[in-house]
Amino acid sequence: MAKIRAISGFPEWTPEQQLVENHVLDQVRRQFELHGFTPLETRAVEPLDVLLSKGETSQEVYVLKRLHAKGDEPAEFGLHFDLTVPFARYVAQNRGNLPLPLRRYQIQKVWRGERPALGRYREFIQADIDVIASENLAVEYDAEVLRTLHNVLASLPIPPVTLRVNNRKLLQGAYEALGFRELDEVLRLVDKLDKVGPDEVAKLLVKELGASEDQARSVLSIAKVRGTTPAALEAVRAMGLANATLDEGLEELSTLLENLADLPEGAVLCDLSIARGLNYYTGMVCEGQMRGYEDMGSVCSGGRYDNLASMGSNEKLPGVGLSIGVTRILGRLFSEKRLVASRATPTTVLVALDAPEARSAADAVAVALRARGIATEVFDRPLKYGKQIAYADKKGIPFVWFPTGADGAHAVRDIRTGEQTEVDPAAWEPPAEDRGVSVRLVDQV
Amino acid sequence: MAKIRAISGFPEWTPEQQLVENHVLDQVRRQFELHGFTPLETRAVEPLDVLLSKGETSQEVYVLKRLHAKGDEPAEFGLHFDLTVPFARYVAQNRGNLPLPLRRYQIQKVWRGERPALGRYREFIQADIDVIASENLAVEYDAEVLRTLHNVLASLPIPPVTLRVNNRKLLQGAYEALGFRELDEVLRLVDKLDKVGPDEVAKLLVKELGASEDQARSVLSIAKVRGTTPAALEAVRAMGLANATLDEGLEELSTLLENLADLPEGAVLCDLSIARGLNYYTGMVCEGQMRGYEDMGSVCSGGRYDNLASMGSNEKLPGVGLSIGVTRILGRLFSEKRLVASRATPTTVLVALDAPEARSAADAVAVALRARGIATEVFDRPLKYGKQIAYADKKGIPFVWFPTGADGAHAVRDIRTGEQTEVDPAAWEPPAEDRGVSVRLVDQV
Repeated sequence: MAKIRAISGFPEWTPEQQLVENHVLDQVRRQFELHGFTPLETRAVEPLDVLLSKGETSQEVYVLKRLHAKGDEPAEFGLHFDLTVPFARYVAQNRGNLPLPLRRYQIQKVWRGERPALGRYREFIQADIDVIASENLAVEYDAEVLRTLHNVLASLPIPPVTLRVNNRKLLQGAYEALGFRELDEVLRLVDKLDKVGPDEVAKLLVKELGASEDQARSVLSIAKVRGTTPAALEAVRAMGLANATLDEGLEELSTLLENLADLPEGAVLCDLSIARGLNYYTGMVCEGQMRGYEDMGSVCSGGRYDNLASMGSNEKLPGVGLSIGVTRILGRLFSEKRLVASRATPTTVLVALDAPEARSAADAVAVALRARGIATEVFDRPLKYGKQIAYADKKGIPFVWFPTGADGAHAVRDIRTGEQTEVDPAAWEPPAEDRGVSVRLVDQV
Repeated sequence: MAKIRAISGFPEWTPEQQLVENHVLDQVRRQFELHGFTPLETRAVEPLDVLLSKGETSQEVYVLKRLHAKGDEPAEFGLHFDLTVPFARYVAQNRGNLPLPLRRYQIQKVWRGERPALGRYREFIQADIDVIASENLAVEYDAEVLRTLHNVLASLPIPPVTLRVNNRKLLQGAYEALGFRELDEVLRLVDKLDKVGPDEVAKLLVKELGASEDQARSVLSIAKVRGTTPAALEAVRAMGLANATLDEGLEELSTLLENLADLPEGAVLCDLSIARGLNYYTGMVCEGQMRGYEDMGSVCSGGRYDNLASMGSNEKLPGVGLSIGVTRILGRLFSEKRLVASRATPTTVLVALDAPEARSAADAVAVALRARGIATEVFDRPLKYGKQIAYADKKGIPFVWFPTGADGAHAVRDIRTGEQTEVDPAAWEPPAEDRGVSVRLVDQV
């Protein structure tokens, strides 16, 4: 007998939750397009060498094998673990036919071949925007993608998200000026701040990288810097570190904060503890936290990568992008029952059937209503009206339509109030709020 | 160096083609919902025993392994090869929480682990509708799903599709009455008619199943029956075969044709050669052919299955469903350049930037336009207007907005005609046809 069960890390929604997810994804798409991003999708698989060439998630790849592959046929492909690497590969592959800079959005499932663990997804949806150009990508695009991401998130029925921004050049330049050699290793340890705290990071800097107490203290004092305006960066300038990369990073971050100054309070925060684990970032980096859900870590993230898309070609294809962890956000809000759909079905009207020979008249009503964009189903059998109404009630269908006495009269009943009115199938309109499914965020209980 | 290349069987679209695919899928979703089907998605993976329990595609499964799994860790999961088996599993698993009958649609990628072959997809999108009930599912739902499928397909910018219908009970009852024992084997051979022709099928019936010449001739004469009304079935009745299952099949097919009599000429054709390969069908079966593309075989298919969803439980969960091969349809029409988008970007307006300090004014124009649903991007750098216009032209953006002389005047230029007019950012509307991307089917060249 087949195993009928949930699989840890592979979430599935109820019909109502699926309507919520679709509503959210539609809104994300709509907003991405309003901001001039064009949709793209890439295949779910990449050659293993593409997947393993960059990034630190290489341990977590699912490889694919044909069930009846010959015993030692080596695995060639793996499922993608993010959408940045596949997009970079797509741009490099189709370079000749793509107008650059290319602004694209991509909403797809990604997979991580991790061991099962509570609350860890192995299949989830990401919604990404990226801009990729040839040779040079104006630094203004950093602000552009952050602004777009803010607008998209603010349009969703979720708690507000604060985008915490930093700059890799700033960090790497400062670490270099402080006398560190293994800059990526410092970044890797700073990235642990959230998880293990500053004391432990200081210890690791000393133990693993041979840092002095002074060096470690300086790294941590940079990571403590927060602010919403360029003035926050004075604390770093006051350290008197002389390094061209550091200066460039300070300048970029400063410009970024100025360009985004018109966004609402709390939308963007300069936070110099943000390092990002992936080693392909070269400039702006960002992690977003959902207010009240800081324990989740980041719900969106990204940054600028200047060397990822070239994938071995001579042309540089610098990019900047951000990714929303849609499934992580929804999964958490679903688990707290905070996201509610106005009903659990797209159907607005159930046309009741009173006799087998009334089917064509009932179908004609459905055709008329659908032509006006009103979602309609016809009950399949002439059961008692009570049973047909009970079906509508159970599904959450707000209206039941009673067609066609011998006199051709039509009536529609709002089964929530019991109110029934005579109507013309060629003209009746439901209240605007009953036309489609709406979604709202309710308070925590 | 990473391999930057296409992978046979894993299609990827251009930005323009992606806009077309999105347009088509939006329309499919909209029509499914108008017909009262609710969206669902299932995880991409199923336990191998679920995938291998039914159907004849079991050879073509991709199994998943963690890259760093211990050497002999057995594969547990495979990627789903259709959406019917996962949906049946979902219903069986969530039986207690689902209002039945459940009308659901599901649009997802599926994978077949086949050897690479020209024109054969290993990753593709299917768009399915199914209705599943408890214990009994009214036979009228057969007509309901076919009607929905016809309406959906007729709403798409593709050539018309003829739904060819038959009934498994009719075939199996007739084969039984003709004296066959291995009814599934007869079906399997009849299913080859399209590929190998009637003479070869007759030979195989004799050779593989020990049929007499008479028996083989009778099987083929049933398969020849075509028609659009119940009258077509008289040819079968005239054979004088006595079998209760056959009679039930004739009755069901006859009712189906009557229920769909109002659909346009050519929408539905009774075709008794349709057998369907999968062994889970128990009643109505259907294959759709796109007119002018009969060489492709079926572009949609499905049928009734009375025992699939129970998956080992005692409750029967009969269902009926149909599946559209979206990628197969689009792939073919793309290859012939028959599907054309009105432009290759969602963006309607590019706001030009004439100086760095004009950025906030340019952003304000974008905010105003987006608030009215007009997709807008702001150029990132104050290059010469000629370069900014060239960018819009290359992308297919129809309008360039010139903001803000010192006098605050705004002008918008239709770069297709060169016509430029002074406008108010709070009020300007593009022509309706330029608001979004539209898609049309063009003649074969």
